[in-house]
Amino acid sequence: MARPAADRLVCAVMAGGSGTRFWPLSRKGEPKQLLRFFGDSTLLRATVDRIAPICPAERRLVITAAHLVDAVRDVLPELGPGQVIGEPAPRNTAPCMAVAAMVARAIDPDAILALLPADHWVADAGAFQRALAQAAQAADSGQIVTLGVVPTQPETGYGYIETVGPAAEGVTPVVRFVEKPTLDRALQFLAGGRHLWNAGVFVVRADRALHALDRHLPDIGRCLAELDHHAVGGEAWHAVIKVAFPHCPSVSIDYGVMEHESDIAVVRLDAGWSDVGTWHSILGLRPAGATNFTYGPVLTLDSDQCVVISKGPFVAAVGLHNMAVVATDDATLVVPLDRSQDVRQVVAEVTARGRADLL
Amino acid sequence: MARPAADRLVCAVMAGGSGTRFWPLSRKGEPKQLLRFFGDSTLLRATVDRIAPICPAERRLVITAAHLVDAVRDVLPELGPGQVIGEPAPRNTAPCMAVAAMVARAIDPDAILALLPADHWVADAGAFQRALAQAAQAADSGQIVTLGVVPTQPETGYGYIETVGPAAEGVTPVVRFVEKPTLDRALQFLAGGRHLWNAGVFVVRADRALHALDRHLPDIGRCLAELDHHAVGGEAWHAVIKVAFPHCPSVSIDYGVMEHESDIAVVRLDAGWSDVGTWHSILGLRPAGATNFTYGPVLTLDSDQCVVISKGPFVAAVGLHNMAVVATDDATLVVPLDRSQDVRQVVAEVTARGRADLL
Repeated sequence: MARPAADRLVCAVMAGGSGTRFWPLSRKGEPKQLLRFFGDSTLLRATVDRIAPICPAERRLVITAAHLVDAVRDVLPELGPGQVIGEPAPRNTAPCMAVAAMVARAIDPDAILALLPADHWVADAGAFQRALAQAAQAADSGQIVTLGVVPTQPETGYGYIETVGPAAEGVTPVVRFVEKPTLDRALQFLAGGRHLWNAGVFVVRADRALHALDRHLPDIGRCLAELDHHAVGGEAWHAVIKVAFPHCPSVSIDYGVMEHESDIAVVRLDAGWSDVGTWHSILGLRPAGATNFTYGPVLTLDSDQCVVISKGPFVAAVGLHNMAVVATDDATLVVPLDRSQDVRQVVAEVTARGRADLL
Repeated sequence: MARPAADRLVCAVMAGGSGTRFWPLSRKGEPKQLLRFFGDSTLLRATVDRIAPICPAERRLVITAAHLVDAVRDVLPELGPGQVIGEPAPRNTAPCMAVAAMVARAIDPDAILALLPADHWVADAGAFQRALAQAAQAADSGQIVTLGVVPTQPETGYGYIETVGPAAEGVTPVVRFVEKPTLDRALQFLAGGRHLWNAGVFVVRADRALHALDRHLPDIGRCLAELDHHAVGGEAWHAVIKVAFPHCPSVSIDYGVMEHESDIAVVRLDAGWSDVGTWHSILGLRPAGATNFTYGPVLTLDSDQCVVISKGPFVAAVGLHNMAVVATDDATLVVPLDRSQDVRQVVAEVTARGRADLL
């Protein structure tokens, strides 16, 4: 008799994000998942701690950018050499899924792989664990299972998952994935009750994942075929990753796999969730009752609905409303929270000015 | 026959201000008059350069706080040891006038003393020089003469000088000094044409100044009497200043002298003037056609009517309106320009938090 699905879980945390959206706090060498501004923990550490009770250390992986491997090891010293995998070049999530599935299968031939973003925020870890266990159960039958967050506002920055009916508890078939909607559509989604936020989590049997990849994205399998001839996590294996990975096509799991699959299910997640995508989203993570989100040596006077963060200089915010003020030793950003998206323009301009030292 | 008044001018620059209003740029050791944010010059240097064509170096004095003497000498290396006088304790402007008049008389028994704030901004130096020469002429007859700036807006942050009639060119009798008015009164002043802004400049014969001080504030003369027994600017003289000055009452020229004098005149000054009193006033000093006042490594995107200044870190201001963003290596301030006054509260709070290192 097969072991229970929950015992076969291998969790792979996708921690390759470069995260310019949190400039000047996030930098090339310290992207969002490695930032410390919720107490002393990083989002990466919190992500791993969240799955720890249902996934022992030896069944966890982190796939990150090659230049972040050391930083990831610092945050997660419990992981062995084969458990932190560095991508020599960013290739989006589908090649990452392939590597994760190969490693998962090596750890456990019957592995059920959970792919998790490293940089999301979840209030209720217990609810997340229960949803993940449910998803593993459903995945065991061959489905690809996602987590869908119960929406709490008409968010236009998230992708949505359309389900067959008013989202019930448990596992529900997915009708389709919907890209970031307009506000009108987002309001309809919220009222209709059939749409969930796509949390970017995928749960699937490792062999099933590799099968799907081979079917929809055969180039990836070809590029990574050589990995099969080396011990997972060994020096030669890492050397092959280094050479082969950049040849993989850059494609996401959503576009490259999910769009072509029909047997997809979603598990409802009602746990307090954020993709921590912009400074504006940080405001939503302030402690209950707090007027502003503050971190570091900051002073707010007569200010509300602000994100005021310093990693160095003393920052005084006076008479501000709905504003982000973010200071580091070498750069400061001030932007209204409803223009958080414009941080990209700043990064472009900083680049154009030849100030790569600030990125 | 007496020498022309213009040849007898001794200019004393009052540079004792502590200037917390420009925190975090201004500090105890670097108050407003020593800041560099108009090109490479300080307001103090600009003040001295402005009077240089009508007042040779050996007839200039600076009276400043004792702890700022070295910094003042750095900015004005042309001044000799007796020409920079350090006040061991702040005692407002009347004791400063007394010391300046004593030194002026020692330089020239027939000196006409001009007392000038160190930290104002004047666009048209020629117009200022002409007004000062006119004031010296008028002072020669025994009047105390002030400069009155032709108002350009209903400013509520300035003191006003009421004159006898629509302010004509040249010297006009002063009816009274008016404290900072309400907006309604300021609008009346502007419409009536009889009121000028008090520029804080006093021009008076040195002997007449000492006479007025002896009459209205005899305590000051008593405290400083010992100075008469020592060579001005010598070691012993500076030593007496150090001991005697703190015993002087702390009182302004306006309250202690001008209120009790009747023969006061004002010379109209139409030169482009600002007391550079708040971050808001800095905005008014931006180059013609500029949307924002910027200084240092700053980036403004889609921002207008802002003051964005950095003495160190790169500062990005995005989507801001009517805002001050001021960054130094150890402190940053963000405040709407119409709340510039609240900087005092910030300084109070910084003090309360025991961060004297930031002041």
